[in-house]
Amino acid sequence: MSAPVGRFITFEGPEGGGKSTQVDHLSQRLEQAGVLVYQTREPGGTPVGAELRAMLLVPDRPALAPPAEALLMCADRAQHVSEVIRPALASGMVVVCDRYADSTLAYQGFGSGVDLASLEAVIAFATGGLQPDLTVLIDLDVRVGLERKRAASRAGKEDLNRIDLRDVDYHERVRDGFQTLARRAPERFFVVDGTQPPESISDQIWDRVTRLVAVRAETPRLL
Amino acid sequence: MSAPVGRFITFEGPEGGGKSTQVDHLSQRLEQAGVLVYQTREPGGTPVGAELRAMLLVPDRPALAPPAEALLMCADRAQHVSEVIRPALASGMVVVCDRYADSTLAYQGFGSGVDLASLEAVIAFATGGLQPDLTVLIDLDVRVGLERKRAASRAGKEDLNRIDLRDVDYHERVRDGFQTLARRAPERFFVVDGTQPPESISDQIWDRVTRLVAVRAETPRLL
Repeated sequence: MSAPVGRFITFEGPEGGGKSTQVDHLSQRLEQAGVLVYQTREPGGTPVGAELRAMLLVPDRPALAPPAEALLMCADRAQHVSEVIRPALASGMVVVCDRYADSTLAYQGFGSGVDLASLEAVIAFATGGLQPDLTVLIDLDVRVGLERKRAASRAGKEDLNRIDLRDVDYHERVRDGFQTLARRAPERFFVVDGTQPPESISDQIWDRVTRLVAVRAETPRLL
Repeated sequence: MSAPVGRFITFEGPEGGGKSTQVDHLSQRLEQAGVLVYQTREPGGTPVGAELRAMLLVPDRPALAPPAEALLMCADRAQHVSEVIRPALASGMVVVCDRYADSTLAYQGFGSGVDLASLEAVIAFATGGLQPDLTVLIDLDVRVGLERKRAASRAGKEDLNRIDLRDVDYHERVRDGFQTLARRAPERFFVVDGTQPPESISDQIWDRVTRLVAVRAETPRLL
């Protein structure tokens, strides 16, 4: 396995923090700055992964035991790393990924109570040890985030998935999990307050990313 | 997790050894002897597993990286153990399963070259450590077995799956893998020569199983 030459940036956090919007903004801003970007997400970053995403997230699909849910997430990740992420990094691209291994630890580990050490071993197997260079954690109160998602659902802008529908206690454990992971790896994590205006969040992320990725000096703002 | 009270019997081996036929025979014979039997298979022993089985085995589905294939097999197994096998064992049934963890070690490990120690850790996570009480290995020359499968395919009796279509060297490594696993756990494995007549194989398996499972003294033969 050759060492990646690009940069690998992941976005993590509880529901409703505007994560996917920020992934879009950062990817566009990097492209406008002349950087080759591969924007992707988990689960669902490959054709096989799209099928797995439906099995994992569509509410009326058969219920999954917690270890099975974790293993499907990791199968999606193994295929994604092999088929997409490693080749993109090897070609020098910046990969911007909406959720990665920290989500499995936060949701299936801290949230569902699956043993963390075992999960870490399964993740290492799935990824061959590939870690992000930078992880942006968009943190916010879970009630605020879930209410944002419910409002978007009522407005017909997005459907609530199976994990959104879990109870508030579950989502509190997930948020605490992300915060714990960030404290354990402060050099990799960049934590942003998700209750700020999107433009402000976008600028803070951009400042952090441009310490990692070389960009042209003058870049237009998107927001 | 409560200790299983039933008995867990798995069938393993390379292609074309008549494994599925013997699973049917043993299950029927046990039922006729008054034993409560749950007959199942991997992958595909649950509704979720049926979807995974198609992703794993249908030849025109997207190609899978070896770790992704192994993780999907283990996701299927985790769901199967949780939803089907443990509850059946807890209720005192004899579970007869066509392929289980040894197949993952033989095919994805010995066959595809996925690291065996990592695979064993992922399998332990998926199963919560559940091991068969008895594993019947129906062993035979892989060229003989593959030719049987091709003949059945030409006769329209069954379709060749994605794994059947791999080359002979791969299948040789799988067979060697099964033999190695059997040598490592001789108390669990019962190895049968798959080139013998099916009735003879069935009788040998029955003799071995009735040392594990209490049956009525007189039982009719099916073959």
